[in-house]
Order: sequence, then structure tokens, then C-alpha cells
Amino acid sequence: MDKLTIKTLAKELQLSVSTISKALRDSHEISAETKRKVLALAEQLNYTPNPYASSLRKRKSKTIGVVIPEVVNSFFSQAINGIESVAKEKGYHVLIYLTHEDFENEKAILKDFESGRVDGVLMSVSRSSTESDHISELINKEVPVIFFDRVFNEIDTVKITTNDFESAYAAAQHLIAGGCKNPAFLAIDGNLDIINCRMEGFKKALSEHDIPFDAASVISCTTNGDHNYNTLLKKLQSAKKPDGILCSIENLSIIIYKVCEDLQIKIPEALQIISFSNLDTASFLNPPLTTITQPAYEIGKTAAATLVKALEKKSYTITNERIVIPSVLTVRKSTKN
Amino acid sequence: MDKLTIKTLAKELQLSVSTISKALRDSHEISAETKRKVLALAEQLNYTPNPYASSLRKRKSKTIGVVIPEVVNSFFSQAINGIESVAKEKGYHVLIYLTHEDFENEKAILKDFESGRVDGVLMSVSRSSTESDHISELINKEVPVIFFDRVFNEIDTVKITTNDFESAYAAAQHLIAGGCKNPAFLAIDGNLDIINCRMEGFKKALSEHDIPFDAASVISCTTNGDHNYNTLLKKLQSAKKPDGILCSIENLSIIIYKVCEDLQIKIPEALQIISFSNLDTASFLNPPLTTITQPAYEIGKTAAATLVKALEKKSYTITNERIVIPSVLTVRKSTKN
Repeated sequence: MDKLTIKTLAKELQLSVSTISKALRDSHEISAETKRKVLALAEQLNYTPNPYASSLRKRKSKTIGVVIPEVVNSFFSQAINGIESVAKEKGYHVLIYLTHEDFENEKAILKDFESGRVDGVLMSVSRSSTESDHISELINKEVPVIFFDRVFNEIDTVKITTNDFESAYAAAQHLIAGGCKNPAFLAIDGNLDIINCRMEGFKKALSEHDIPFDAASVISCTTNGDHNYNTLLKKLQSAKKPDGILCSIENLSIIIYKVCEDLQIKIPEALQIISFSNLDTASFLNPPLTTITQPAYEIGKTAAATLVKALEKKSYTITNERIVIPSVLTVRKSTKN
Repeated sequence: MDKLTIKTLAKELQLSVSTISKALRDSHEISAETKRKVLALAEQLNYTPNPYASSLRKRKSKTIGVVIPEVVNSFFSQAINGIESVAKEKGYHVLIYLTHEDFENEKAILKDFESGRVDGVLMSVSRSSTESDHISELINKEVPVIFFDRVFNEIDTVKITTNDFESAYAAAQHLIAGGCKNPAFLAIDGNLDIINCRMEGFKKALSEHDIPFDAASVISCTTNGDHNYNTLLKKLQSAKKPDGILCSIENLSIIIYKVCEDLQIKIPEALQIISFSNLDTASFLNPPLTTITQPAYEIGKTAAATLVKALEKKSYTITNERIVIPSVLTVRKSTKN
């Protein structure tokens, strides 16, 4: 048999090639009845449209690219579920790309998008990203980019985050209310706007209680687990060791538990712990972890809905806008109070 | 300026279009010196090859599609890291597709691959998949598919798994050695080969100790959290309630903890728990969870390395082969012994 093309379908149904093409694209110019016929035959003959050829013409892949640092993190896996709930409803494919927190990976992925592999991008920037030219370039090529969770402020687009400043402020207040005299902020190295916001919230609470904030108030971690373990081990044995930690990254909270176990530090008696975290297991840790629970699913859903609107509605243009969906402080037994 | 094409590069460097094209594809016919010149100019002029046009010619996207049920599972997120370690080294993009355990999603994703979006596929089948025609069809279109973790036995290809039967057998032996008289197997509905293998291992251990295995020995869960909670709640209040559970799915272990907390069942005194799990938090649960820890990273790495070999080495053909990488039983305090 000759290769099955759109012409075969046209001939078989005695319709024009253009009608078949429009029917396959679900064009409003074609009646529901004709669309039904075309799709039925296409399915019967096992016709696969060539998306590459088709993309060259239409510049539409019906695909959303999601660029995130990692998936070993409940926040991102829940956000993906929110994104996919919208994509499924609207008929988009979702492709997930991981940067592993590496700026070069992030640049290579965005470069690859310039050729039309995806219609639009939802992105949470890598912690090692230092500048945003690669993002501007992609937007200039008319591929819309929307940020969620980790944003670049200098890019004009929609940014969907939680209330990082306020949540960290409330978390630090909670530690202090539980008797904490020397709280520390556990940060991750890099240039992340969310970490800065969270640290500012933490600082504000300290300042309101006349607790000094200095270099010793911040514990800096990396993506290297051994390094982080050793940093914390040293810190929690030092003369001016903290009696409470606000952990700004979910995965790091488990390292604090590990160090406490090894040093036999009692949680919360000797060290209170509160973490930004969407861990399913938070309630069943020993002791249960007090968390700032982020609306990960809703953040993903809102980001995807905004992107799809921008892709489909000619009347909607992406503007520089921040959408903030608040987190919830869930008090468990790793803090006093 | 005219649109920048391969012709522009050829004219500028006074080389043929074919030479430029080969240099950009890293062909062995072109000298290193020429390649260097071409790449330098391409970078200087910010030349982006059109991968769609290019794919139509070459049928190579340098992309691996990874099809998995979900990422809210440490096994899959660690397997992805293993896959990406190989892909990065070999210059492949990795696209992650989630089926959310839905067979229709799985079929739609594989259908989409038929048009050349990816060069090859690494796949862990959805639990609701009932037949494998969609996979045979893709393989017939010369897109290789390799299975990891969850396989279809009837498809002739490389299958990379852990030793599911032996691990479950060892886990059940461990429960029985700890005094368990009435162990139950926590399964997930569907047709998954791994669940069947694990159940057979469990059965073998019971039979060796003259413990009857019947319908009551299996607790069947779904993807619905509320349903699973209620099923377990009922089971753990029944007259013939189990005194040990072998949990075959990571995410379900947390529901057991929840039900035990709500019913005030003491772990491991009244109920021993052991789970297939790669949870980072296993050691810090209350009590720490005894796990069968799967070599997720190595499974992903091996799957990717095998696929890349098949894509790149003309002398290597994929055959029907099973590669088994054993799991490790990590005893913690949720079991006696």
C-alpha cells in the first residue's frame, strides 16, 4: 500500500484535502458530522499525522514544556500533577525536563525549545542560574514562558508563587513563640528569589524580637548531601549552636533529622524544626515535622491554565503579574507551642 | 537579515552545504578542525538548526522518551536520575511522560511517538494496561522500546527489573521469623507482572511454613487514597486481622501508618510492616520502616545505556533478555527480629 496521507483520506471520503486537514485540526469551519467521519476513517486506517511536518506549517505542537530542577521533591511532583490536570482537559501533551539545578542544562533545554518543540513553557529556575538572557531570547521567539515557584523578577511575565515572605515570617514567629532564642535559617546556595524572600521574612521576625541576625544565623547548603551533613554536624556542635531551624528546602529537613539522630539531639526539646515541605510522610516522622505546606497542586494548575489561555485566546496577552497562593502552617511535634 | 540557514554558514565559510550539514551532525567524514570552525560560526551567528526539518530527513531527534506512571514515588524519581546520567553523557534529551496509571493515556503517548518525536522509549507500564498492541505497533515502526520495573512479558525486548520474587520471598520470611502468624500482602489492582511476581514470592514463604494463603491474605488497593484508607481500616479491625503486612507499593506504606495511628495499633508489636520502598524518610519514620530497597538509580542507568547502545551501534540488536538487579532488605524497627 502507498504511504497513507491526508490525500488518501480526502479521496476516500470525496472531500478536499483542505477540509480533511481542517477537520483533523478541529477547525470551527468544519461541521461536527464531517469531523466525526474524518476521525472515524483516520482511526480505521490507523492514520498518524506527521507532527513535525504539521508543526512546520502550523507552528503548534500542542505541547507544554515543564522545566524544573528535579522530581525528588514532593513540591514539584505535586505541581506536575496540577499542570497535567489542566493539560489533559485542554488536550495538551506535557513534557518534563529536569535541569538538576545546573544552569548549563537549563540553557541547553531552552535553546532546544527555540525550534518549536513546545508551544509554551512553565518554568521553575535552577538555583545556579545567574542571568536570564536565555529566557528573554525564547520569549522573543514567541514561545511564552510562565514562572512558578522559582522566578526571575527581571523577566516580564506571569509569576505564580506562594507567599514566601509571609510564610517564613510566620514560621520564625512560631519558633520564637515556642521559646527559641537562637534560630537559624537553612538556605541553599545560589540566587533563588524564593530563598531571599524567605530569608527576609525570617529576618523580620527576628528583628521584631530583638534577636540579632548575622552570618551565623544562616546555614548554607548545596546539592551535595555529604557536604550538607558535615555542615550541619559542625553547626550543631558549635559553641553558639541554634535551638531552632527554619528549613527553606524540603529535602534538607531529612538531613537535619539524620544529624540530630547521630548527635543525639532531642527534637524539639533541644532543637525545634520547621520546614517548607510537602512531604507525604511529614506526619509520620519521629517526631512529626511541622511544615509550611505549599499549595503545590494549585500552583501547577494555575500556571498551566494561564499558559493555555495565552496560547489559545488571541484576546489574552501575558503581562507582568504576580499571582500569590498562600501556604499553610501545619504545626506538628517538631516544634514546641 | 535573511533567515539564517545552513546555506549562510556554507557561504560564509566557503564550504559546501553538505560539509556544513555533516559537521553539524558530527560526522566522522569531517575533520575536527573543520567541525570546530563550523560550530564556532554557528554559535557566533546564533544559528539554531530546525529539529523538525532535520528530523524529517534524519529521523533522529536525539531524544529518549521515558513513560512512567507517576513521579510521586521515590523509585521513579531515582530511576529518572539514573536515566539522565546516561543521557547527559551521550548527548540525549530526556522527555518524561506520565500515564497516571491510565491505559488510555499510555496508548495516546505511544501513538504520539509513532511520528518520530523520540528515537527510543524507556517504559514502565501502567497498572491498568491490559494489552500490548500499542507497544508492538511502535516497535514495528522502528522505535525501540525497553522496559524497566514494570514489563509486558509478551513483548520481545530487554526488560530490566529487580528480583521481585526473591525479594518478596525474603521479606515474608523476615516477617515469619519475627513471629508473624497471619501475614497479609498489600497489592494494587491491575495486571502488573511485578505485583504477581512479588505475590508468588510471598506465597512461597507462607507455604514453606504451612501458613495458608487465601483470598483473605491479600489486601487490594487502588489509586484512590480514601478507598485504600477505608479498605485497610476495615481489614485491621476484622476478626482475622493480619499481624504483619508486606506492602508491594511504596506509597501505600504511609496509609498503613495512618490507619495504625488512627486505630492505635502498635508497630511492630501488633502489626509488623515491611515495604518495597525507596523513601528517603524511611529511617526517620515512627517507627523506622523496614524496606526492600530497590536499585532504582542502577535500573534507570542500565535501561538508558541499553537503549543508547541500540540506537547508536549498528552491530547491536535488542533481543528478548531480562536483566535483574537485586534489591536489598534493610531491616529497621517496623519489624521484629
